[in-house]
Amino acid sequence: MTLLDSVFWSAGISRDALATRSAFSKTRVNSAVAGMLEQGVLEEVGVQHSTGGRRPETLRLNRRLGVLLGVAMGATGLEVAVLTPDLEVLARHSEPADVRQGPGLVLSRVRALMRELLAQCGATPKQVISIGIGVPGPVDFDSGQLVNPPLMPEWDAFSIRDDLRADYGAPVFVDNDVNLMALGELWRMQRGLQNFLVIKVGTGIGCGIVCHGVVYRGTNGSAGDVGHICVDPSGPRCHCGNLGCVEAMAAGPAIARLATEAAQAGESALLAEMLAARGTLTLQDVAQASRAGDTAANAIVQHAGALLGQMLASVVNFFNPSHVFIGGGIARIGPLFLAAVRQSVYHRSLALSTRHLEIQYAPLGERAGLIGAGVLAMQESLRLRGSVR
Amino acid sequence: MTLLDSVFWSAGISRDALATRSAFSKTRVNSAVAGMLEQGVLEEVGVQHSTGGRRPETLRLNRRLGVLLGVAMGATGLEVAVLTPDLEVLARHSEPADVRQGPGLVLSRVRALMRELLAQCGATPKQVISIGIGVPGPVDFDSGQLVNPPLMPEWDAFSIRDDLRADYGAPVFVDNDVNLMALGELWRMQRGLQNFLVIKVGTGIGCGIVCHGVVYRGTNGSAGDVGHICVDPSGPRCHCGNLGCVEAMAAGPAIARLATEAAQAGESALLAEMLAARGTLTLQDVAQASRAGDTAANAIVQHAGALLGQMLASVVNFFNPSHVFIGGGIARIGPLFLAAVRQSVYHRSLALSTRHLEIQYAPLGERAGLIGAGVLAMQESLRLRGSVR
Repeated sequence: MTLLDSVFWSAGISRDALATRSAFSKTRVNSAVAGMLEQGVLEEVGVQHSTGGRRPETLRLNRRLGVLLGVAMGATGLEVAVLTPDLEVLARHSEPADVRQGPGLVLSRVRALMRELLAQCGATPKQVISIGIGVPGPVDFDSGQLVNPPLMPEWDAFSIRDDLRADYGAPVFVDNDVNLMALGELWRMQRGLQNFLVIKVGTGIGCGIVCHGVVYRGTNGSAGDVGHICVDPSGPRCHCGNLGCVEAMAAGPAIARLATEAAQAGESALLAEMLAARGTLTLQDVAQASRAGDTAANAIVQHAGALLGQMLASVVNFFNPSHVFIGGGIARIGPLFLAAVRQSVYHRSLALSTRHLEIQYAPLGERAGLIGAGVLAMQESLRLRGSVR
Repeated sequence: MTLLDSVFWSAGISRDALATRSAFSKTRVNSAVAGMLEQGVLEEVGVQHSTGGRRPETLRLNRRLGVLLGVAMGATGLEVAVLTPDLEVLARHSEPADVRQGPGLVLSRVRALMRELLAQCGATPKQVISIGIGVPGPVDFDSGQLVNPPLMPEWDAFSIRDDLRADYGAPVFVDNDVNLMALGELWRMQRGLQNFLVIKVGTGIGCGIVCHGVVYRGTNGSAGDVGHICVDPSGPRCHCGNLGCVEAMAAGPAIARLATEAAQAGESALLAEMLAARGTLTLQDVAQASRAGDTAANAIVQHAGALLGQMLASVVNFFNPSHVFIGGGIARIGPLFLAAVRQSVYHRSLALSTRHLEIQYAPLGERAGLIGAGVLAMQESLRLRGSVR
């Protein structure tokens, strides 16, 4: 890791702390930092509280380097943001979207949003350092192509990278959305955890894996594809063709379907009222009903949590992570869902695997995907830039 | 990785190949190698076929450095070997053993075998460089202690390392048996694969994980504990307390129990004959009957393979490895078992995860554990020795 990488990953650091973290002497760090300040790569800001003596200045990537564009595509929504090199969000927009419309329509909307947001924060296209994009499907990271994405079949073998690269003359990096959530959380913790998982439950279920302090993508970029792990051999048929996949039983659409059935069966006045008002129920409706104490909604939430926990138990036995962070639309349900997941995991996993295991909602919350896209963009730009040690 | 590490991991290498693999120039490599030859750390042997010009000498760790002791403890057997620093087995002994007898009895037998085998190959105790030991349970790698080992409860919190360290004044390294099989296969392939799994099916079921080219042990050293992944929520109760663990349904004891029931139910004359002759059936009896074409044995083998494959499908979806190697007593069954495993994995895993997935028996076969113990001993000794670059 170069000094510049260390500054980026620490989100503000003093020279002394930088020397401690790096393998270099204070003298060497001071001289390298002086050079990078002069080149305009780093800048000094504010003062940091110190244990005594003079207050060391905080170093960060120089905001005059330019801006990053971050895009988080979900199956049903789209988010675009402009971020500083140290990942402060300068402008952000999110809206419903349907990725199944295919690359043409979706990317023209992405382009329009990028232009608007850049204008909104007074940045020019030339200032774009790089672009990071998260997509809800498996990506071949080296080619930037989507590979057999089940939620977005029209995008198979499409390279978002090649399509967008010319727009800003800036490099474009594409990764799976959950990998980016994991990258975002890794950055938030300044790489403080070595082995953890981020589970996203929305339209589908996916898992980002951090192993030995690095995002792990697997041999074909499909690592973390946990949505099709079987939790009930006699369960309903999934769109993948198999029976009882956790995604077919515990993701957003399954939860909405069970809620619709409960509303229609007269099991919940609240859900029936929501269904009558909107014509259809979503995960968010169930979350709202559950938080309001609706018994039928709570039963659905607890069942989904137990199934997710059953899948997670297998994964925890195999991977023995220190933390599992849960994100995506499901997080709006609140503590009841989390309690059901925990109970199920602790019941099924080995004592040793769960001795210090923490299961919680992703601390970055709904920002995880965008922050992750920014981390990807900046990290890979620093890598392309080569080693400024 | 130091030059010395590179020589060790390549199992015989020319200076030119060493320079190619390392980040150093040929001149620097030649000079470092000359120094290590003079110090007696490396030696040159034989000649290597070259593409032309003079034939480069092959470098390897100097056998005069001493010998390694490798121990592979299984639930029902014990193996001890003396190996050269480049992992040639000089002497080896295996015998049935019951780890449940506890550390006292088992380790005194290990000590006796070590003495005998060293004498057998004319090595003195002082020549022992280090000792590598594999055990069938979770190990806290840093302390060398077993942690809650389900197959060997008497060993909980026992440190084999501390117990044996004084015997030879040599460092002792302890790891889980399947981790060592994975380490052995990694060495055999000269680190040629980045992400693969080794599954051991014997008395229990465990998994060694190689991630980013390194053995991954997890947060508490329990990574790969796949034996208690549920494959049938209404299956039989496992010794861990849960229902339908793959270990309770597809490991050696379950296979032997099903075969005994088949013999007693008159479903197989061959199994009944074996049962009458020996009073009990083992995994090896079922393997033998299956290879002889016995229908009942084949059905049991195929059922066990399908269940193992079902567990593996979850793990493959999560981890997306390039290879799964299967070892342990189960390997003696032969192609029928492997075919059942493959069919089950390809049926349940995502197309992308299995596109290039290879499932085969572990190439090192029954030697994997001992070779892995040797790799551990030598690798950790080189690490302790520090960096000779």
